[in-house]
Amino acid sequence: MNLAKVLGTVVSTRKEESLRGLKFLLLGQVDTARELTGTTVVAADAVGAGVGEMVLYATGSSARQTKLTDRRPCDAVVMAIVDSWEIGGRELYKKGRDD
Amino acid sequence: MNLAKVLGTVVSTRKEESLRGLKFLLLGQVDTARELTGTTVVAADAVGAGVGEMVLYATGSSARQTKLTDRRPCDAVVMAIVDSWEIGGRELYKKGRDD
Amino acid sequence: MNLAKVLGTVVSTRKEESLRGLKFLLLGQVDTARELTGTTVVAADAVGAGVGEMVLYATGSSARQTKLTDRRPCDAVVMAIVDSWEIGGRELYKKGRDD
Amino acid sequence: MNLAKVLGTVVSTRKEESLRGLKFLLLGQVDTARELTGTTVVAADAVGAGVGEMVLYATGSSARQTKLTDRRPCDAVVMAIVDSWEIGGRELYKKGRDD
Amino acid sequence: MNLAKVLGTVVSTRKEESLRGLKFLLLGQVDTARELTGTTVVAADAVGAGVGEMVLYATGSSARQTKLTDRRPCDAVVMAIVDSWEIGGRELYKKGRDD
Repeated sequence: MNLAKVLGTVVSTRKEESLRGLKFLLLGQVDTARELTGTTVVAADAVGAGVGEMVLYATGSSARQTKLTDRRPCDAVVMAIVDSWEIGGRELYKKGRDD
Repeated sequence: MNLAKVLGTVVSTRKEESLRGLKFLLLGQVDTARELTGTTVVAADAVGAGVGEMVLYATGSSARQTKLTDRRPCDAVVMAIVDSWEIGGRELYKKGRDD
Repeated sequence: MNLAKVLGTVVSTRKEESLRGLKFLLLGQVDTARELTGTTVVAADAVGAGVGEMVLYATGSSARQTKLTDRRPCDAVVMAIVDSWEIGGRELYKKGRDD
Repeated sequence: MNLAKVLGTVVSTRKEESLRGLKFLLLGQVDTARELTGTTVVAADAVGAGVGEMVLYATGSSARQTKLTDRRPCDAVVMAIVDSWEIGGRELYKKGRDD
Repeated sequence: MNLAKVLGTVVSTRKEESLRGLKFLLLGQVDTARELTGTTVVAADAVGAGVGEMVLYATGSSARQTKLTDRRPCDAVVMAIVDSWEIGGRELYKKGRDD
């Protein structure tokens, strides 16, 4: 999985039938210091993440292991909203404090 | 998934039997500002996308989760035509206005 | 999928049992202007491609969706020989003319 | 698989239901000389690895081949704690001596 | 698949139960001129490869298509020892002559 920030959303009406109802989030990968790395990805939302939140996303076939994405042509999913992360006992991100 | 622009098409007559009928699109990845990143990929078309349109494509085994690509040696599929995307409330791409 | 040129072949006699009979091609990725990008990959040949030909190859589990590669430890397959590609109505590669 | 050092942990309470109980580790890839390469990844822990330990992690569908991660939207797993590695008969890392 | 040279081995006693008995090789990717590219990967050995040998390795779910790696959390496998490769009729590597 990778750490990312929810930057925005992508809207599509003409899409593969099985994708109806999925919400597509535009994610910006972040490093451990919370800086955007420049890599972006579009992921389905499985947890109700909002713009500005730090999340974890999974890619590949693992992205289809949720009820929303099962058997759908979807290769990235937001599967967790991040509360915090720490390195060597130091909290580098804490939801609320660092948003 | 990634954002891309349909640049053109690839034609092949000698191909794996199961691929007959698939249309191959030449895609150029774009960043959130709609600029081509230089990365290109060839994807099967599952939604009838046309040259110049902004699309989403999925890769890996997820690219086989459509009727057209099921059980075929195909690792990328265009599964959505993009209407718009926004970051922080600002619409950075809107179909028709920005094509 | 990606566009590539068949550069040569790789020979191996000591290999996983299930790979007997597979031909391994050495591919050089090309950009849309037919220039080698420097990235090379070794792929099984599912279509009888020859050295110098432009091909499409698929990777990952999709590379096992042919009779030759089914259930084999093979992660890349040449699944099409390219006749031509075009961008914006301009034919950038045409087999025979540009080889 | 890749060599990595366990840098820290990631905490998430709002996540896909099936992920309850999984521990997420923040890994920093290392080269053979034990230097961090700058690439980080978040992986589920299948072996009880601790901060500072050198580990191996697997990605993609292979990351779901453990009891903990089976059928879960998880694309990276720590599946081994490394004791040592050597190149050309020279031990470049030995647990205990080089931590 | 990719060409690589077996650089050494990785030892792990605390690992996922299903991995017992697997031998982990430390591989250095090589280009077609036999030069190390700097990319390294750890792969299970399915063919009895020795240090210094040139090999092919497969990644992803394809790495599990051997008896040794089936259903195991292993995402890279050495599935062939290379005898030779050639580009445009010129043999750039021949086992024995170029080791």
